[in-house]
Amino acid sequence: MIIIGEKINGTLKKVAQAIQERDASFIARLAESQTAAGAAYLDVNAGTPPEQEMDDLAWLIQVVQDRVDTPICVDSANPKALAAVLPILKKPGMINSVNGEPDRLEAVLPLARRHQAKVIALLMDEKGIPETAVGRMEVARKIATAAREQGIEDEQVYFDPLVMAIATKPDAGRIFLETLRLLKQEFPEARTVSGLSNISFGLPQRRLLNQAFLVATMTAGLDAVILDPLDTKLMALLRAAEAVLGRDEYCVRYLRAYREGRLAES
Amino acid sequence: MIIIGEKINGTLKKVAQAIQERDASFIARLAESQTAAGAAYLDVNAGTPPEQEMDDLAWLIQVVQDRVDTPICVDSANPKALAAVLPILKKPGMINSVNGEPDRLEAVLPLARRHQAKVIALLMDEKGIPETAVGRMEVARKIATAAREQGIEDEQVYFDPLVMAIATKPDAGRIFLETLRLLKQEFPEARTVSGLSNISFGLPQRRLLNQAFLVATMTAGLDAVILDPLDTKLMALLRAAEAVLGRDEYCVRYLRAYREGRLAES
Repeated sequence: MIIIGEKINGTLKKVAQAIQERDASFIARLAESQTAAGAAYLDVNAGTPPEQEMDDLAWLIQVVQDRVDTPICVDSANPKALAAVLPILKKPGMINSVNGEPDRLEAVLPLARRHQAKVIALLMDEKGIPETAVGRMEVARKIATAAREQGIEDEQVYFDPLVMAIATKPDAGRIFLETLRLLKQEFPEARTVSGLSNISFGLPQRRLLNQAFLVATMTAGLDAVILDPLDTKLMALLRAAEAVLGRDEYCVRYLRAYREGRLAES
Repeated sequence: MIIIGEKINGTLKKVAQAIQERDASFIARLAESQTAAGAAYLDVNAGTPPEQEMDDLAWLIQVVQDRVDTPICVDSANPKALAAVLPILKKPGMINSVNGEPDRLEAVLPLARRHQAKVIALLMDEKGIPETAVGRMEVARKIATAAREQGIEDEQVYFDPLVMAIATKPDAGRIFLETLRLLKQEFPEARTVSGLSNISFGLPQRRLLNQAFLVATMTAGLDAVILDPLDTKLMALLRAAEAVLGRDEYCVRYLRAYREGRLAES
């Protein structure tokens, strides 16, 4: 499972404060601890207004790159900010995100191509999130076509089928899994990605629902997940799921996690 | 999810002692607590030698039926014991188990038919457990044919695809899930069932692996599971999985479990 660490996010209070105060050691520690916990990418989101975002993102990326070699997932809706910071990435990274809106695709895909960045593609467009799996696949086709036209290979694209809150959409998990199945069928080379927390919005004991959803998406073949790798309970279950699903040959990662005391809370 | 409570099992030391001492209140409490925790069936296994099994099973069933209305899953490899106790079931129950061995099918299926008992059918035969999903499906066909010949409908049959230990068979989970998929395709009316603990044999933190396997099997559409309903952590995850998979409309069971304080350990 490709883990994208979500902790360096300026919409979180402590991170916002660290950005404002240019507290490099706080950010560097988040980069280091997430990497040690298994993150293959570090999502970096400034969470600041557009006029400030470019500077903040550039600072965050430099701080992270000074501490770890983990590639970065630049999390911004602002093509200008992306254009400004992608050149400073030391390793090919990831862009979070595009969707089916033509303007976004036009602005961001050439950047992805130029900087060999992978692209997270949300299956929604200017009309919102399609209700059905079939509707989401139409958006996927639109994005895949635009990406191919830019010379971006399918395997660089990480489709996010999008999950909504089951509290208001009881079918949300089923539609997600159905979309995932259709994506694997139609775009076998493309990757798939998801966050975990939307599904549990509005319900009690959200971590339990997020844990169950994580294992469900892995069973359906999800390739990458955006999560908090410092959540030891969630990560322990992820390692266990890899083992039972045959995605961790001879349980190598599971047993290493055990030896390092990271499976303690069962 | 149809939950079959596994606690009344004479291979467990305390249960064995209760059976030997005819400690009815110990057994009755296990029946009551598993039912309260959500068991739809109570597995009853005497765990004693054949010459004693019939009496012990009959006693256990009477004790359980005196306390709860939950139907019973009679767990015995001994057709004579089954023949003796099935007539005392107050409600149509379940037989655990048959497999593809002709002798077993011949001895047990007529009893199932006569007593309207559902039948757990293990996908193995006199040659052992087939390595592949395709091999296990051959056993399923043999069992389904024999059951139909006895006038037993497919929906009375609970196929167990059988899971082995990933410590020695890294593919065990994958083969299980593939067999499950093929069963759903070829026998859409039949049900599917599994225990959870074989997969984790020989590995540390087994509960974590069993939890992940539970959610994986539910994602793949497993209908019934044999587990310890008094394991609050496992049951909390089961309720969460039902909710995220759209198998708990409007999260009714999840929210009830929450209100009753049964989702505490997340």
